[in-house]
Amino acid sequence: MLMTVEEAQQRILSDLPPVMPKERVPLLQALGRVLAEDIISDEDIPGFTNSSMDGYAIIAQDVQNANANHPIALTVKGTIAAGHPSHQPVHHGEAYKIMTGAPLPPGADAVIQVEWTKKLSDNQVLALAPVRSSQNVRPQGQDIRRGDIVLHAGHPIKPPIVGILATLGIATVSVYQRPKVAIVSTGDELIEPGSPLGPGQIRNSNSYALAAAVLAAGGEPWVLSPAKDTKEAIRAKFLEAATQDIILSSGGVSVGDFDWVKDVLSEEGSLDLWRVNMKPGKPVTFGHLHGHPFFGLPGNPVSALVTFELFVRPVIREMMNVHQWQRTVLSLPLYESFTEIQDRRHYVRSRLVQEGEQVYVWPYSKQDSAVQTSWIGVEALMIVPENSGPYQAGDKLPVMLIPADV
Amino acid sequence: MLMTVEEAQQRILSDLPPVMPKERVPLLQALGRVLAEDIISDEDIPGFTNSSMDGYAIIAQDVQNANANHPIALTVKGTIAAGHPSHQPVHHGEAYKIMTGAPLPPGADAVIQVEWTKKLSDNQVLALAPVRSSQNVRPQGQDIRRGDIVLHAGHPIKPPIVGILATLGIATVSVYQRPKVAIVSTGDELIEPGSPLGPGQIRNSNSYALAAAVLAAGGEPWVLSPAKDTKEAIRAKFLEAATQDIILSSGGVSVGDFDWVKDVLSEEGSLDLWRVNMKPGKPVTFGHLHGHPFFGLPGNPVSALVTFELFVRPVIREMMNVHQWQRTVLSLPLYESFTEIQDRRHYVRSRLVQEGEQVYVWPYSKQDSAVQTSWIGVEALMIVPENSGPYQAGDKLPVMLIPADV
Repeated sequence: MLMTVEEAQQRILSDLPPVMPKERVPLLQALGRVLAEDIISDEDIPGFTNSSMDGYAIIAQDVQNANANHPIALTVKGTIAAGHPSHQPVHHGEAYKIMTGAPLPPGADAVIQVEWTKKLSDNQVLALAPVRSSQNVRPQGQDIRRGDIVLHAGHPIKPPIVGILATLGIATVSVYQRPKVAIVSTGDELIEPGSPLGPGQIRNSNSYALAAAVLAAGGEPWVLSPAKDTKEAIRAKFLEAATQDIILSSGGVSVGDFDWVKDVLSEEGSLDLWRVNMKPGKPVTFGHLHGHPFFGLPGNPVSALVTFELFVRPVIREMMNVHQWQRTVLSLPLYESFTEIQDRRHYVRSRLVQEGEQVYVWPYSKQDSAVQTSWIGVEALMIVPENSGPYQAGDKLPVMLIPADV
Repeated sequence: MLMTVEEAQQRILSDLPPVMPKERVPLLQALGRVLAEDIISDEDIPGFTNSSMDGYAIIAQDVQNANANHPIALTVKGTIAAGHPSHQPVHHGEAYKIMTGAPLPPGADAVIQVEWTKKLSDNQVLALAPVRSSQNVRPQGQDIRRGDIVLHAGHPIKPPIVGILATLGIATVSVYQRPKVAIVSTGDELIEPGSPLGPGQIRNSNSYALAAAVLAAGGEPWVLSPAKDTKEAIRAKFLEAATQDIILSSGGVSVGDFDWVKDVLSEEGSLDLWRVNMKPGKPVTFGHLHGHPFFGLPGNPVSALVTFELFVRPVIREMMNVHQWQRTVLSLPLYESFTEIQDRRHYVRSRLVQEGEQVYVWPYSKQDSAVQTSWIGVEALMIVPENSGPYQAGDKLPVMLIPADV
């Protein structure tokens, strides 16, 4: 019995290295990084009660009987602009013209929006409608209270979070260092892009696709030159790679005569896991090399990226204290029948189709794990349970959403 | 009648500036950029017919009657490793041991996987099952044919695309330059993060949140210092900003006494659109300044990001020739009732909840557009049509998925 994907994930995540050290970066450079400290506010946000409208700061009680047929006149004592507080109190029968975001003057308890008023002169205005006490007023501390934990360490920093940090006055942010990920492709047939191909040779694409996937997951890739298919060449390359936080290899994990990855891993570290009941990606290998997580990914380009998504990305995220790394999984109806039956769990490259109100999952017809072009436009991996099917159009299956083309 | 969101989008997109110029970058730096050339393959991929399994290259006809009780013996003539083609032809009754990815030798038309064979000696193997002609063989050109247009200009470069480009031998990639986006916040009350607040002052957060959103959309932000609330200060800042490809301001677009953005835009360029029937974001302003698209976004932090998402991001993407900028919209049932009725289209910050097989949309209870913390954990904007509701739990509404916290 092969391990299930969940068993493999559990095994891999049960033995994580420590969370990465911290570093401090300017606010805008923190985008895409992960918070390494709890953010506790030392002030109220907003810091003062203010107007949410352009209008007049008043005492609500003064206009409680106002309407268009029975407007109520108020004396305008001045104008309060954002950034320019007034300390003059508002008395009954008085109003201050006030701009959005400006501090409410003492004595006022509401703002009547300019659209509900009629200006008579520079110092007189008519209220045409009633307002409640607190209407159009944002109380001090409405958003954040002094002492609140606003964000926890481990929170990914996306644009709105950058805005919240700016609001709190944070100009530099403590973030986790990116895990450094060594990438070694193996194979005598591999040639670097930009060099001419000889007979039987192909280009090393996995190193670059995996480096890009590492970047997208928040890690820092280090691409080594490919290792030849000898045990000693692979050993030398792995020992060079073992200085990094995570080591990825691709290729050499199957049952071929020159598949040395598992042997070298066993000799230099530990082979903890080999083969998972999934398609593509069955020969995926996991272990430790000099205390660092080691992933032996399959050589097929599609298998390499699917196993990266399911096993490597969670480790990169967890090493930055991010526990919510799961992709959204939706149950969606099939757009067309899917008749292929596999004994292994099948991760099927798919796109989404909208018809009327309904969204369908539409598997690509080419699912060969060597066919790289089958990744173009992929929006989801449809998850077909082991030994299940055939499925008809309309049958529902779980669908893991992935950012377009990841 | 205010313009609808779609009318505003159409107006904005009907008058786009030219697509950005191109530049050439190393392959891995192309991640997150957009292809600026069609990628036409000048070779077949795979470049030679090869084995998809570790096994034996044979003539399928030789083993058509093989089974476990009636194995068929073949003479092993040698081993073919990946990267090491053999030019010796395979004759009837012969086999070459072959590794995954190695070129098929002349004469062979199939590979029998090693698991279906039994080794008798170094030069004899038993076939325990039949294989079809072409079985476990990847024909030359299966993935890509010489002359194929593999990718079109305008394709976003995500990790699998990096892999495909590497496979094609492309070491440097032609990508569109990132549109340069000037960002000007307006308001006397604004103080930069890191500086102390005076009475009535708040920190400039929109410039940083918008700069982060520009980066996430593929643009290159340039944050100017905030403009004071005088017409001349705003004019001076806008003229400084007008050297960039796109100009964003935030604040100063409502009906307050110091809302000069529309006036300056009208005087120095053109005011094409003001106010859209949406919440948040109603006062959004669009026009042109010295021939460049100009967006006057509202000052409320939530409104600024929602209007960025709906109006600015599409322009940044289109300027890089990306036409598929729409987010996935799903029709999802409400997890709880949503009783707020608005005359404007309401974009409601929400998260997704899974219960059993069903995914629900769960709007946040705080929807005040000044409450920045209401962005934390947002996974979707639920779209509530104009003048509609109340909605009960289970009612379906369109839900725009956005990357977590964008």
